[in-house]
Amino acid sequence: MSKYTIGIDFGTLSGRAVLVDVRDGRELAVSTMDYPHGVISETLPGTDIKLPPDWALQDPQDYLDVLGYVVPEVIRKSGVNPGDIIGIGIDFTACTMLPVRADGRPLSFEEKYKHNPHAYVKLWKHHAAQKYADRINATARARSESWLGRYGGKISSEWMFPKIWQVFEEAPEVYHDAAYFIEAADWVTWQLTGKQTRSYLFAAFKCMYIPEAGGYPSEDFFAALDEGLRYVVRDKMNAPIIFTCEPAGYVTPEAAAKFGLPAGIAVACPMPDAHTAPVALGLCKDGDMCAIMGTSACYMLIGDKITEVPGICGVAQDGLIPGHYGYEAGLCCVGDHFAWAKENVVTADYIREAEARGISVLKLLIEKASKLAPGESGLVALDWFNGNRNILNNASLSGVIVGLTLATKPEHIMRALIEATAFGTRVIFENFAEHGVSIKRIVAAGGISRKDPFTMQLYADVLKTDIEVTESAQAPALADAIQAAVAAGSHAGGYDSLGDAMAAMASRCDRVYRPDPVAGAVYDKLCAEYKILHDYFGRGENNVMKRLRELAGAGGQA
Amino acid sequence: MSKYTIGIDFGTLSGRAVLVDVRDGRELAVSTMDYPHGVISETLPGTDIKLPPDWALQDPQDYLDVLGYVVPEVIRKSGVNPGDIIGIGIDFTACTMLPVRADGRPLSFEEKYKHNPHAYVKLWKHHAAQKYADRINATARARSESWLGRYGGKISSEWMFPKIWQVFEEAPEVYHDAAYFIEAADWVTWQLTGKQTRSYLFAAFKCMYIPEAGGYPSEDFFAALDEGLRYVVRDKMNAPIIFTCEPAGYVTPEAAAKFGLPAGIAVACPMPDAHTAPVALGLCKDGDMCAIMGTSACYMLIGDKITEVPGICGVAQDGLIPGHYGYEAGLCCVGDHFAWAKENVVTADYIREAEARGISVLKLLIEKASKLAPGESGLVALDWFNGNRNILNNASLSGVIVGLTLATKPEHIMRALIEATAFGTRVIFENFAEHGVSIKRIVAAGGISRKDPFTMQLYADVLKTDIEVTESAQAPALADAIQAAVAAGSHAGGYDSLGDAMAAMASRCDRVYRPDPVAGAVYDKLCAEYKILHDYFGRGENNVMKRLRELAGAGGQA
Repeated sequence: MSKYTIGIDFGTLSGRAVLVDVRDGRELAVSTMDYPHGVISETLPGTDIKLPPDWALQDPQDYLDVLGYVVPEVIRKSGVNPGDIIGIGIDFTACTMLPVRADGRPLSFEEKYKHNPHAYVKLWKHHAAQKYADRINATARARSESWLGRYGGKISSEWMFPKIWQVFEEAPEVYHDAAYFIEAADWVTWQLTGKQTRSYLFAAFKCMYIPEAGGYPSEDFFAALDEGLRYVVRDKMNAPIIFTCEPAGYVTPEAAAKFGLPAGIAVACPMPDAHTAPVALGLCKDGDMCAIMGTSACYMLIGDKITEVPGICGVAQDGLIPGHYGYEAGLCCVGDHFAWAKENVVTADYIREAEARGISVLKLLIEKASKLAPGESGLVALDWFNGNRNILNNASLSGVIVGLTLATKPEHIMRALIEATAFGTRVIFENFAEHGVSIKRIVAAGGISRKDPFTMQLYADVLKTDIEVTESAQAPALADAIQAAVAAGSHAGGYDSLGDAMAAMASRCDRVYRPDPVAGAVYDKLCAEYKILHDYFGRGENNVMKRLRELAGAGGQA
Repeated sequence: MSKYTIGIDFGTLSGRAVLVDVRDGRELAVSTMDYPHGVISETLPGTDIKLPPDWALQDPQDYLDVLGYVVPEVIRKSGVNPGDIIGIGIDFTACTMLPVRADGRPLSFEEKYKHNPHAYVKLWKHHAAQKYADRINATARARSESWLGRYGGKISSEWMFPKIWQVFEEAPEVYHDAAYFIEAADWVTWQLTGKQTRSYLFAAFKCMYIPEAGGYPSEDFFAALDEGLRYVVRDKMNAPIIFTCEPAGYVTPEAAAKFGLPAGIAVACPMPDAHTAPVALGLCKDGDMCAIMGTSACYMLIGDKITEVPGICGVAQDGLIPGHYGYEAGLCCVGDHFAWAKENVVTADYIREAEARGISVLKLLIEKASKLAPGESGLVALDWFNGNRNILNNASLSGVIVGLTLATKPEHIMRALIEATAFGTRVIFENFAEHGVSIKRIVAAGGISRKDPFTMQLYADVLKTDIEVTESAQAPALADAIQAAVAAGSHAGGYDSLGDAMAAMASRCDRVYRPDPVAGAVYDKLCAEYKILHDYFGRGENNVMKRLRELAGAGGQA
């Protein structure tokens, strides 16, 4: 008789659950729900408190609401007997963190704190902690901290410690009252299992946790930042680390009742969303890369040896697939660019045309962009509308469009933005190659890989390589379901090794984009322009972007 | 009993006539008409012949249609006795030129040529002759041509000889069959007077005609460009030069019948549109500057001494007001930027909001832009969507926006574009000052000066100077009417000197924008960023804009 697992992907805007058959990974049902408060970037909900630029918060209640909706719905839609569900797993954006009390209650739930932005979840793309990241990087360089090389020589403002430090400095009462700062992934897992755990992959990639180097950075390092932070790990983060494939725990009777699950089933160790892809796609060889292309892009590469590659997000032992090294790199803005353009760079005619044809403005713009020849737009852009994660790792950077004329149309800008993300990707891939880390196979997943063949072909042309695409519409959630089957173990009807589970359950690729060398030759020229601008704006020759952000943040005051 | 004159301003998109009272310059009636074919930049009318990038043509029949409509209408609306009309004058965009037969018939009227884009009017903003301008400049520098210094060291692709050379190279049959290449201003005047003349100001500012240096550049110079061009002036441009305040001739009976005018009245020497302002505004002192702000901006400065100022359009004796030197500088794109933004950078919500409020999208965007603090947009732009006329004088340059983020909204871009034009203006004004030419008073005219107080205040803040604005809605056409009164002379009821006519008829200023020093301090910072980018993209450090145009022009082929 079949057994089933549930995987839930907590994305930036919504949660998506799948219920799959453990025998073959077949998806029986899907359920999605948008977060009621979405991304909070302008005003704190229910108040008129304005958030400064670069802030991005969430309300943790939204995650519970999603669990309470999608889990019962996916079970109902699948028609399976709930008693045959043997495990649940989740993945989450990262680092998406919040301050909580000792019992796990978020500070933002309290009357005392509901008007304090620092009490809320700081979403991965909250970029207002850049100055703390800068100071962490400077201090780590000055002290020659050994962990720095693992993270490409620079940590990101998106990570845990810059965000904690921002709270410490800007909201000391929140820092004081928080028993823990915790990844949202670990917090949601805690709500299911009733006990706090810390998932290794989040710790390794967002909290500078390196097991072979003794764990988190030293107390002396944190004291060098600020004496008040010396014990930040001991006092605010102390919880057991669990590793991929280990169960984080088992669903409590309270959670079972609340979310419609069987009590006692295994809860998998959660994964950062970007790290799910190799599992979902069954990739486990040296040189296998997953490209997860959605609002942002994550490039997850499996390697058999460890090399310190400057400018990437990081590399960690067992970082993707146990037994291999996992490299992470990416762009912090891909589909978000296209969404920005379709919102802000359109004509009244195009809006009417899209309406008349019953298609989205985004689809129309991409269709028009697809009819241009490479280079015809006359534009080159920098894809830094949400900062640069790699190779420059600087959230103060911003977007540029060069070559605008009175004849520039929205589709020219759309095309330039798509090309820019491909060039940004090429810069990352070339950086791997220059440091001796080879990419042998690329498999793409994520919304863009399935919905936007034009962009995928363009990437193949720019990168000059085949790109395979997977059939699964819910790759991260499938990976969660695979992990849940391993966490459940064979005695419960699951698997005892990740390899066995992946072999049975992972998605297969069903389409290959092959590079067009004619287009590629034009893109070589455009990419050369991109690199000149990349270095000019990104490597200190002209720090105009940082200065503009400072001026904007100062409300324009001189 | 009152006498009247008619002035007609032939702009980029339409013709505007005023009928004024010669005693006091009072406008009795106004009539405007859009050119039926507007600016031809995509497809040749009535054909499917596509124009390459940077082309901008017009149909000369449109000018005759405008004359035939606005002249009778302005007379009818004014209610004056046509017998009391004593003169007519026109101004025109420049250099806007066309090839004609010996009798003045445009080649584009002929069946043989109606499918040949080179037979049409090349509008001032036709920028496809840049490579010919580049070669003219290089040859002039190599030969140390003395006239080059008068034009800031560089002539523009918008001028007469680059456009003629483009025809010579790309459509030799048109070059061969053309008896003349002629400014549209002189051609329309010819249609009124029955005889060909060449207006000094067009010749001086667009054809390198310097009376004290013997007129046009030498035959040896043209032969150095191409032996086939040696006699271009003698064979294709030979017609008498007439000076400001001289009548070009008198309305023929045929023209009188066709356009509803009294036969025999004086036709003034036509003026380039930008040169009309000092006359309309009554400016005639050393250091007086007219800022004409519309789709583009022209800065016309009156000086008592001659100084060679690099990067400006030029300086000419009697160039604005007889007896003074006239300096010309400008931006080739101001309001055109804003029109581009309101067409291409809007949201569906804004379109709805503008409709609901019954205002234009442009007005809405400027209103939203006006609510931002200086610097709040986080953006800095380069205002080169139509190339750069001064100080760089390079039509291959293009626009840039730096600082884009996912939070960037259309009003941020609109504001950055407005600011960029102000910064471009500041660069020009500082360049005058650095070369010892002082600006003592600024009076603005043109559409933006009257319709857009936000932009005018921003200019005052950026330039740190008072800006006066004139009341007249039709300043160029008023200047034409003043010139017509001088051409008619006192015996006909007009004036014998321009000074007398200006004193009686010119517009008065009725509003002053005064600089805000707090905003000015922020703009100092933004303008510093502008200048860094201006020099980086404009002075050869990164010629990406030229390369992008080449790539776009090559249809994207590598």
